[in-house]
Amino acid sequence: MVNTIVQIGEIVGTAAFALFGAMVAVERRMDLLGVLLLAVTTAVGGGMIRDVLLGATPPLALQDPFFILIAMAVALLVFWARSRKSPAQDGKFFRRLYSLAIFCDTLGLAVFTVTGVNRSIALGYGDNAFLSVFVGILTGVGGGVLRDVMASRVPMILRKEIYAVASLAGGLLYYYLYWLAGEYIALFCGAAVIVVVRTVAVRYQLNLPVAKPKKEGGV
Amino acid sequence: MVNTIVQIGEIVGTAAFALFGAMVAVERRMDLLGVLLLAVTTAVGGGMIRDVLLGATPPLALQDPFFILIAMAVALLVFWARSRKSPAQDGKFFRRLYSLAIFCDTLGLAVFTVTGVNRSIALGYGDNAFLSVFVGILTGVGGGVLRDVMASRVPMILRKEIYAVASLAGGLLYYYLYWLAGEYIALFCGAAVIVVVRTVAVRYQLNLPVAKPKKEGGV
Amino acid sequence: MVNTIVQIGEIVGTAAFALFGAMVAVERRMDLLGVLLLAVTTAVGGGMIRDVLLGATPPLALQDPFFILIAMAVALLVFWARSRKSPAQDGKFFRRLYSLAIFCDTLGLAVFTVTGVNRSIALGYGDNAFLSVFVGILTGVGGGVLRDVMASRVPMILRKEIYAVASLAGGLLYYYLYWLAGEYIALFCGAAVIVVVRTVAVRYQLNLPVAKPKKEGGV
Repeated sequence: MVNTIVQIGEIVGTAAFALFGAMVAVERRMDLLGVLLLAVTTAVGGGMIRDVLLGATPPLALQDPFFILIAMAVALLVFWARSRKSPAQDGKFFRRLYSLAIFCDTLGLAVFTVTGVNRSIALGYGDNAFLSVFVGILTGVGGGVLRDVMASRVPMILRKEIYAVASLAGGLLYYYLYWLAGEYIALFCGAAVIVVVRTVAVRYQLNLPVAKPKKEGGV
Repeated sequence: MVNTIVQIGEIVGTAAFALFGAMVAVERRMDLLGVLLLAVTTAVGGGMIRDVLLGATPPLALQDPFFILIAMAVALLVFWARSRKSPAQDGKFFRRLYSLAIFCDTLGLAVFTVTGVNRSIALGYGDNAFLSVFVGILTGVGGGVLRDVMASRVPMILRKEIYAVASLAGGLLYYYLYWLAGEYIALFCGAAVIVVVRTVAVRYQLNLPVAKPKKEGGV
Repeated sequence: MVNTIVQIGEIVGTAAFALFGAMVAVERRMDLLGVLLLAVTTAVGGGMIRDVLLGATPPLALQDPFFILIAMAVALLVFWARSRKSPAQDGKFFRRLYSLAIFCDTLGLAVFTVTGVNRSIALGYGDNAFLSVFVGILTGVGGGVLRDVMASRVPMILRKEIYAVASLAGGLLYYYLYWLAGEYIALFCGAAVIVVVRTVAVRYQLNLPVAKPKKEGGV
């Protein structure tokens, strides 16, 4: 039951990550292959970095192509939709979908973060809280960083939005609840914290502060 | 005999990859070291990513510096040629060489793709077609992606030309022929398909479609 | 005694690397998290690449968060300083610190390079000079390359300054002295060469040549 929920979360999250990857690719006028590759990179890149850092090679995503196929299907859908719609309709189309997509993306961040921490524990690194939470966050945000680097722009998570902070909070909670209350409670609470923090941040447009040495000066 | 042909192909391909890496570096006004590093990255980056993902560390390219030395020699040659020629002569010089360079690059793509798949099989991952073909493609195109990311531009293979598609076709063919007809036939046919597909694409300027939501709109 | 000196060097170097990472992040108007992440990436990225390439996973930096915490402390300090100062004071503030920061950065390059070569030897790759020196250089310069790629700009070491060349000279010297004269002499001489070469290069503004096909032409 819990495993089924996690799997559904992973599928929804993969699709949402792929959606944003494909949209960045279309925006940058990449060709069909670029759209496919960027969607796949965004969707499974974080987990691949995690597995490489943990020495668990080949990465899970390459052992079982299931999630890569989902990402490709989403990429094809985005490509098709963007090729035929006029921008006006497009605008409406995506505005309608946008809130849903953001929510699915948040769900993906939540599920990937906690499964990332879980994988570190499963591989025997559970005694190292720092390592486990770090690779959990990487699993959640790494794909987006790779996407932005490949699209030649400064990664979004470095510039705005409470994204990695939500991941950090949930990852930490998952790690400690895992030992205190068991895997399932940890899973539920960790993921819930990420969804709540991120959703509140998006709703109220909360951002982390930026250092702004104003050109106009003054102390 | 076959091994000799593969080795010659690898040397020619390494030189061609290094050539394009060095040219991008010169274009971006990198210094001598930048030209060397970008040439090396382009030439051996794909294989290094492959080996890291397969857990076959240290990567082959670092165990034996032979191919890195070839890439460095090509980089020095490009640097020297670009430093002394006037642009006019330069233009002619490179236009004359360009067709040859593209062909060598295609040969490199072909050889690297099939040896990439082969390495996955040799490391014991032969039962996973997806993984083997995926790392084969990565071996072929990874260096170019790293080159473009380091030169701060959107990777060429994401934007245009039938490049990774040729690699995919040849990698798949190699993988299945390997089991059906043996390594040598697989090698020859896989590489041949890549060379033919890419050469036809370059000759007739075939590109994958791009999603183009026209500003002018209309359904 | 020697170990203490190395450790102090590593701490100073980590802080200096983090300083430059954080300053690039502030310049690019990244938020607090971006400043933290870029500082950490710059400080420990080179060592992480080295460990992944050598198959020594998880990387040292993730096993023991000590250096990451130092980098974070520096990032917070930079963020705080840049948030409150006016640009004029800022300018003066950083100009005063700049020479010191460059020196600490150079010290970091020296220590990271020689400890990088040392780690390769410690992991059993000492018979491969090429591999050992290569990962030593990567340890020294890799973090800066990752920083610049994530900040979406062409890596500084590819464009100017005698940086990797100093690392190369010191890495080679360390490797050969290690076998001829023992670890401690190698350590001292290798690091000293890097500090001297880089300091002289900065002082006299020495740069590697750039290939410049002048628009104005002429042979």
